[in-house]
Amino acid sequence: MTQSASMKPGATPVSLQTFGSFFVGGHKAETIDQTLEEYVLAPNGVPVAINPNGTTSVGQMYVQYLLGDTGMHQAPVVFCHGGSMTGTVWESTPDGRTGWLHDFFFSGWNVYNVDAVERGRAGWAPGHPAFSSKPILRTHQDTFTQFRIGSRVEDVSLTSLKAAAYPMSQFPLHAFGQFMKQVVPRWAGTDELISAAYIELLNQFEKPVILVAHSQGGSFVMRAAEQAPDKVAAIVLIEPAQAGTREGLETLALKDVPMLVVYGDHLDLDARWPSIRKRTDAYFKTLSADGGKVDFLDLPQNGVFGNSHLPMLELNNLEVSKLIKNWLIDNLS
Amino acid sequence: MTQSASMKPGATPVSLQTFGSFFVGGHKAETIDQTLEEYVLAPNGVPVAINPNGTTSVGQMYVQYLLGDTGMHQAPVVFCHGGSMTGTVWESTPDGRTGWLHDFFFSGWNVYNVDAVERGRAGWAPGHPAFSSKPILRTHQDTFTQFRIGSRVEDVSLTSLKAAAYPMSQFPLHAFGQFMKQVVPRWAGTDELISAAYIELLNQFEKPVILVAHSQGGSFVMRAAEQAPDKVAAIVLIEPAQAGTREGLETLALKDVPMLVVYGDHLDLDARWPSIRKRTDAYFKTLSADGGKVDFLDLPQNGVFGNSHLPMLELNNLEVSKLIKNWLIDNLS
Repeated sequence: MTQSASMKPGATPVSLQTFGSFFVGGHKAETIDQTLEEYVLAPNGVPVAINPNGTTSVGQMYVQYLLGDTGMHQAPVVFCHGGSMTGTVWESTPDGRTGWLHDFFFSGWNVYNVDAVERGRAGWAPGHPAFSSKPILRTHQDTFTQFRIGSRVEDVSLTSLKAAAYPMSQFPLHAFGQFMKQVVPRWAGTDELISAAYIELLNQFEKPVILVAHSQGGSFVMRAAEQAPDKVAAIVLIEPAQAGTREGLETLALKDVPMLVVYGDHLDLDARWPSIRKRTDAYFKTLSADGGKVDFLDLPQNGVFGNSHLPMLELNNLEVSKLIKNWLIDNLS
Repeated sequence: MTQSASMKPGATPVSLQTFGSFFVGGHKAETIDQTLEEYVLAPNGVPVAINPNGTTSVGQMYVQYLLGDTGMHQAPVVFCHGGSMTGTVWESTPDGRTGWLHDFFFSGWNVYNVDAVERGRAGWAPGHPAFSSKPILRTHQDTFTQFRIGSRVEDVSLTSLKAAAYPMSQFPLHAFGQFMKQVVPRWAGTDELISAAYIELLNQFEKPVILVAHSQGGSFVMRAAEQAPDKVAAIVLIEPAQAGTREGLETLALKDVPMLVVYGDHLDLDARWPSIRKRTDAYFKTLSADGGKVDFLDLPQNGVFGNSHLPMLELNNLEVSKLIKNWLIDNLS
C-alpha cells in the first residue's frame, strides 16, 4: 500500500453533509473484590494504579456513518461485516482500490458501517463471561481455505497462493497479506450480545434501512430484522452463514421485505459451503413459497466467475456491487 | 444517542473526493505444534475446525482517511488517539455533537485517523508475546479520575458524577456512560510494536503531515517524528504522556518542526499530572532554548476553563480546536 495507490479518487466528488460515529447497545457490568494492580504504561513512565473493581461497559456496537447532502436514494445502507472481520472489509480493498462503502456513497446512498460487539472499535470486555472462552485469531492458511479463495496451503508465499487459488480467482492474491491485517480475534460465546446490539441498532433508525450483511453478519441481521421488520427496507445477504429463525418463518415477519441472497463461485469445491447453503436455501425457498420476496444472485450462474467468500474486496468488486445496486433500484423504487 | 441527535449536519456541505482505509506496519508470526480446535461459531451452526498453527499478522496499524476535493490547507492532519482509546475519540462526541475530525475536514484539511496497534480496527494477536500480559480495561470510576474529569467516585450515577466533577467541568456528564463505550482494552507490552508502526506510517507519506496526538499518542508521535522529521509539518500534542527522547534532544532532529503543547484545566488537583507535565515541560523548554519552535497552549491561562484530559469531546471542543487551527494557520503559512 502506498499513499498514491490507496487514494485513487472517485470519478466525481460528492457533497458530504456530515460524518461521524456512535455506539448502540451494551450494558454496565460490575467487578468487585479484585486486587489492585499497578502498571507502567509507557517507557520510563509514571506508574499508574489501576483498580479493576468498578463498572465496565460490555456488549456495545460501533456505528460509523457518512451522509451526503442530497441522498439520491431514500433508504440508507447499513453494512454489517462477517466473522473475524470489522467494518474495514467494506472500505478500501487490500490492494488499495475503493470498496463498497465508497461505491454506494458515491452512487448516492447514505452509508452506515458497523463494528459489531467484540470487534474493532466496538471493543471487548476482558473478564466478562461472554469473553471467557479463548479468543480465536484465524491464520492466513485457515482464512485462505475457509474464505474459499483456494485449496489448502501450507506456506503463504505468493507462488503457493497462486498455485492453490481456485480457477479464475478474483482475489487480489498479491495483497493477501495486507488483507490478513484486517482479521481480528473473535470469541465463541458472544452471539447473544451481538444480536441484542443489532436489534437496538435497528430500533434507533426512524425510517427503514437497507441491510447489507456478509456471512456471520447475515445471521444477526436476519434475527434483528425479524424483531423490527418495519425498520428494514431491504436485505442483501452476501453468502449468509445462517438464515432467519423458524419462528420468523412461522410468523412470516419478513414476508414484505425484498431480499437478495448473493453467492460466489466454487462452493462445490469447499468442505462446508454446500451444507451451509443447503440449509439457508431451504429457509429462503420456504419464505419465497409463502409469499416472501426473495431473489437469488448466484454469480457464476450469471456469468461472473471466480469470486470467493469476499466479493466486496475482489478484483471485480464493483461489477458485483453494480448488480446489487441495480437490484435495489429495481426493488425499492 | 438518537439518530437525529448524532447526525446534526455541518454548516456547509464539503466536496468529498474519496475516503477509505489502509494498514501499515506489522509482521507475520508463526505458530506451530498446537492442537487442532473445533468451534461452533453460530447457534446451531456447522462446526468449524480451526487450526491455530500457521501464520498470523501482528503489529499492524489501521489508518482511515477522508480527502476533500480541494484541500484549503496543504498538509493533511493525522489524528493519533491516546491510551485505552481508538480513533473514535476524534469522531463524534459522546453526546452526539461533531468532533475534531469533522471540524478539521469541514475547515478544509484532509484528515487521517488511526487505530494504533492493539486497538480498534488494527486488531491484536492472542498468543503473541506482546499480548501475553493481562489486557487492561479501565473502569468508569478509574477513567473518570485518571482522565481528570473529577475526583474519585464510587458509583457512576449522574448525581455522583456531577457532585465529583471539577469546577466548571466541560465534560458532557450525562453522556459519560456513552463515552465509556469507546474505551477498549490495552496491554502493557506493546509499545515497541506501536512505535514501529507509527514510524512506518510517517514513511508512507510523500509530503509532510500535521500530527495531532492525544496523551499516550504523544509519546509515539514524538518518537516517530524523531525518526522521520522530514515527514512532519507540525505537531500538536494534547496533554502528552511523554515528550521525545533524550537522543532526539541531543540531535535536535525536531528543531525545525513547529509544536503546540495543549493543557486542560485542574492539573493541580490530580495525583499524576503535575509530575507528568514537569517532565514533558523540561523536554520542551530545553528544545525551545536550543532553537526549537515550541508553543504552549495552557487553556485556563488563556481563559478557557474546565477542560479535562479529553478536550476533543467536551462541550467547548470546537472552541479549543479553533485555537489549534488558528495556530496551525499562523505557523504553516
